[in-house]
Amino acid sequence: MRTQEQPGIEAYKASGFMGKEQELVRKVVLPYQQDVLQDKAGTEKSHVYDNYRNAAAALRGEDTRDGFYGMVFQDSDAAKWLEAAAYSLGVCPDRGLEAACDELIALISAAQDKDGYLNTRFTISDRDKRWTNLLEGHEMYCSGHMFEAGAAYYEATGKRTLLDVCLKNAEHIYNRFVKDATEGYPGHPEIELALMKLYRASGEKRCLELAEHFINVRGVDPDYYRKECESRDWTVWGGKGDNPDYQQSGKPVREQTEASGHSVRAAYLYTAMADLAAETGDESLLKACRRLWDSITQRRMYVTGGIGSTVHGEAFWADYDLPSDTAYAETCASIGLMFFAYRMLQNECDSRYADVMEQAFYNTVLSGMALDGKSFFYVNPLETVLGISGIAPTHKHTLPTRPGWYACACCPPNVARTVMSIGKYAYGESSDTAFCHLYAAGEVSFRNGIRFTCETDYPYGLTVIYRIRKGGRLAVRIPQWSRKTRISLNDFSAEYETDRGYAYLSVKDGDELILSLDGEPRYVYASRRIAGLTGKMCVCRGPLVYCMEGADNGGTVLGLRLTGGKITETSAEGLPGVIALKADACRIGDLEKLYSQDKPAEQAATATLVPYYCRANRGETDMKVWS
Amino acid sequence: MRTQEQPGIEAYKASGFMGKEQELVRKVVLPYQQDVLQDKAGTEKSHVYDNYRNAAAALRGEDTRDGFYGMVFQDSDAAKWLEAAAYSLGVCPDRGLEAACDELIALISAAQDKDGYLNTRFTISDRDKRWTNLLEGHEMYCSGHMFEAGAAYYEATGKRTLLDVCLKNAEHIYNRFVKDATEGYPGHPEIELALMKLYRASGEKRCLELAEHFINVRGVDPDYYRKECESRDWTVWGGKGDNPDYQQSGKPVREQTEASGHSVRAAYLYTAMADLAAETGDESLLKACRRLWDSITQRRMYVTGGIGSTVHGEAFWADYDLPSDTAYAETCASIGLMFFAYRMLQNECDSRYADVMEQAFYNTVLSGMALDGKSFFYVNPLETVLGISGIAPTHKHTLPTRPGWYACACCPPNVARTVMSIGKYAYGESSDTAFCHLYAAGEVSFRNGIRFTCETDYPYGLTVIYRIRKGGRLAVRIPQWSRKTRISLNDFSAEYETDRGYAYLSVKDGDELILSLDGEPRYVYASRRIAGLTGKMCVCRGPLVYCMEGADNGGTVLGLRLTGGKITETSAEGLPGVIALKADACRIGDLEKLYSQDKPAEQAATATLVPYYCRANRGETDMKVWS
Repeated sequence: MRTQEQPGIEAYKASGFMGKEQELVRKVVLPYQQDVLQDKAGTEKSHVYDNYRNAAAALRGEDTRDGFYGMVFQDSDAAKWLEAAAYSLGVCPDRGLEAACDELIALISAAQDKDGYLNTRFTISDRDKRWTNLLEGHEMYCSGHMFEAGAAYYEATGKRTLLDVCLKNAEHIYNRFVKDATEGYPGHPEIELALMKLYRASGEKRCLELAEHFINVRGVDPDYYRKECESRDWTVWGGKGDNPDYQQSGKPVREQTEASGHSVRAAYLYTAMADLAAETGDESLLKACRRLWDSITQRRMYVTGGIGSTVHGEAFWADYDLPSDTAYAETCASIGLMFFAYRMLQNECDSRYADVMEQAFYNTVLSGMALDGKSFFYVNPLETVLGISGIAPTHKHTLPTRPGWYACACCPPNVARTVMSIGKYAYGESSDTAFCHLYAAGEVSFRNGIRFTCETDYPYGLTVIYRIRKGGRLAVRIPQWSRKTRISLNDFSAEYETDRGYAYLSVKDGDELILSLDGEPRYVYASRRIAGLTGKMCVCRGPLVYCMEGADNGGTVLGLRLTGGKITETSAEGLPGVIALKADACRIGDLEKLYSQDKPAEQAATATLVPYYCRANRGETDMKVWS
Repeated sequence: MRTQEQPGIEAYKASGFMGKEQELVRKVVLPYQQDVLQDKAGTEKSHVYDNYRNAAAALRGEDTRDGFYGMVFQDSDAAKWLEAAAYSLGVCPDRGLEAACDELIALISAAQDKDGYLNTRFTISDRDKRWTNLLEGHEMYCSGHMFEAGAAYYEATGKRTLLDVCLKNAEHIYNRFVKDATEGYPGHPEIELALMKLYRASGEKRCLELAEHFINVRGVDPDYYRKECESRDWTVWGGKGDNPDYQQSGKPVREQTEASGHSVRAAYLYTAMADLAAETGDESLLKACRRLWDSITQRRMYVTGGIGSTVHGEAFWADYDLPSDTAYAETCASIGLMFFAYRMLQNECDSRYADVMEQAFYNTVLSGMALDGKSFFYVNPLETVLGISGIAPTHKHTLPTRPGWYACACCPPNVARTVMSIGKYAYGESSDTAFCHLYAAGEVSFRNGIRFTCETDYPYGLTVIYRIRKGGRLAVRIPQWSRKTRISLNDFSAEYETDRGYAYLSVKDGDELILSLDGEPRYVYASRRIAGLTGKMCVCRGPLVYCMEGADNGGTVLGLRLTGGKITETSAEGLPGVIALKADACRIGDLEKLYSQDKPAEQAATATLVPYYCRANRGETDMKVWS
């Protein structure tokens, strides 16, 4: 079944849209986030650097000064930043950044206990509570993120310091849970997918074994967390462990059929399951992954690739429960969905995975970051109503504008690391084939020898030119949304085979392969099972979902409704380089009364739409995707 | 300004629709609720009778057996039942019921402390905590409901026992808060409107003075409750008193401009303000009432007359925040809105008040009770989606079927007392005029001497015949929804003057006055400011709002949408005597996918609609008002 022997490719040097996104992350986001972590940015207090310093002091038996500050998973902010920085160094060497990474890595190393344990929260103040609260403690979550950083930094720089810290920490965890057979598994899955990366970077088989162990024991005793809660006298948030589906432990993973619970946890777990299935050829695991994929993408996903519709527990809930205005749709959850898609592509090259990966990236993931890289959304609703969104008790989470940072700062560094490693998602390879999942401009080289330059203005330009430097077999995705697709090779119509949404063809050195995708804006309709969307439509073009904002529509989108007519291209003030759209619409007049027998006047209007990811970049304005 | 010197009329003997509703309450609801209060109905434990027995034991210094059980306001269930029973005795003498009332009144009397204090919760277990938690303790709320019962029982039977208990309790409260000038006012307004009733029933001026006192001191110190919280070491629900708008104490009442906070508290407070304004001619109070009325009815009310849109605190929130599927719209809040409307009518006879009173009664209030009188809704959403409503964390409160009773059982007895006293809302009088606010069939006599029989099949038959027994001046409401209204007197077109939605005319003994209202079903549209209702419509006929249920529409209303065409009358299975409607609609086909570029097929269809108050009487089915 495996289509890719080794996930990832040799190198991707981005240009075009991806290049600009990466440049934004390199030049703005990474330095900004580094300042935040050191409490130099004047935003929400982070204390991450100081947490490491104070943990090291604790280990030396010295005064821990101002102790630990932050969420129980505060360490992961450092790890995600380091991981993003590592990817950045991989594509664009930067001595200053590397030195900053080394400095932070030194702090981290010094905070590691002799036995390999690594977590500032428990090292500074509660050493006796280590490993007693797997449900809420996030120790393995933090380890997992550090493993991802360690693997990435080693791959980017060849430096082993952080990798060795991670291996020592992994060994500590392995000894506890595998060798000594201590019961339990992580409350927030993450370490499993990270162990797979650490295994691949280091070759250490125990990492693979530990990942497999956690996946196999999960949910075998659905009552594990409840018993854990009863056995200790403290909690982080008062969790009782009585809702096992919340952390995907209600059943053994191979028996799970519906995406459930906290959506980031779910996506991270399914990612690891898919990765392990690809690594080991475990068919039963792959079958479970396919079922869970269908559960998400066929019944529980927003058109923007957002998942986890309810604010209560940032969670999946019921099929077709996809409200626009109270959507949670966390940025990190869509990043997790990209991870899951990418690992499913390792198992079977099918465009349904890459289509969703693209949908999530260009819409919800990019929506998480302002166009200037300086503010971030955690929550991505499909409708914002001024005076209600961000204010009403039911809508407190759907802020109309992006804050600079969050106390729970998982999303901003998650976007940064995803953008900086986008080449891994855009391209894949097997021994004889180069896979083009996304249309990411830049120079790409594969371990199998194939090399090409991809030229495109994607996602706005729908033509993609592959100039082949070193030929071989290509598999180019044809997205399901493209109704008119042409592939030409050196100016002639190309002959190719298609399999599950990919065009397979062989190219030679010097060939020019041109993929022309459907650039027509299109209306998209929802299943009537999503009760709130009956009779509504939205507009998409290429991979982009569009929305209306008050900013382009006379100050408000209230009463503005698409009518399904012609759509043309235009531009929008304050969004240079962005293709906006104009669509036939009608505007319902403002009634004087709350309710009336008189049908309100409907006036023909033109709605201006902008890409959803560009929303909320021009001050406080209302917004809607569906109308 | 006053249009009615004394609220209420001499007598109303219901027939027709109101007669049947009252019969249901008399024969089913009152006996059932009496069983519930005595824990004989096999529903949620009530313990109300036992609470009184145990409180009396406590006062005698005896063992309090199983102590107090229930909500802090459990006593009010007894009071509301007694009040409903009193109204029932007023219209239909019943020795058995009267004996049952006397028995309960004896229990209540025995539970009153020597100093007049009356509350089982604090008498049984926490006598030292009396009056220390006005924010949450509901002592005055329970007293208020008992005052309403005491006044009603005295008026119905002439028996003074409960009235005297109430007067003694009122004196206790008067002494504490007026004579001894103790700081504070009730966290849940109710006693104010009840004191007005007790004043009218007893002539005791101190009741009026106490009502006025509580209204005048409210919100003068917005920080009162926070300070109260700090001064004690216990709470009921952890309230901190830091959100004064929640209990309408953020400003002095005369300065309040927006309906805010807990919607039942708000409606009860505004009711008392309007009543006091009518009693004392206080213009500044009346002005505040008008502003608050507009805030509710022009910006914060569902088309069903439901108010308090958010489940968070059962509260008013922002203008135009009126979601259909997560609506709270508590039954009791709409009862409170009827109270408020009725008291505004005392100040100024304007159909805008009576129109809303009718809208609330025939839709949300009656929706609170099943057609068989045996189960009750607390929450009245305008859309029910199977698999989501009542289940999803955001929709836990919007149950798709009515439970038999609730732990917090405020709504069921509230519906009962409203139905049994509907004559007071339907009719009013001044020294020379009889006001016909609602079209309630039956025999009506006024203190001013006017008497007539009202014959009508209202709300289904839109013709109302007044056969005049004793003539005088009538004021008959012409509802705003009626576009074709005819009034004839003895077969000739009547001559009348209209003033603020009422037709004024004089009638003689033996006259037959016929009011013909518009019986055409009509579409109603919402302001575009209610974001979720853009492009939608609903159907009304007479005072009734209609909804679609899956039960009449092929099992589900998913994808079913009104198109604004012809509406005809029909019947619905399982709803005998009910005029159902058929309207042109289209049904959107079920997509195989969650989202699609292919516009889903739309098939012309006929939607069957039933009155909203009849919803959820035929098993679990989906429902929507707007489409």
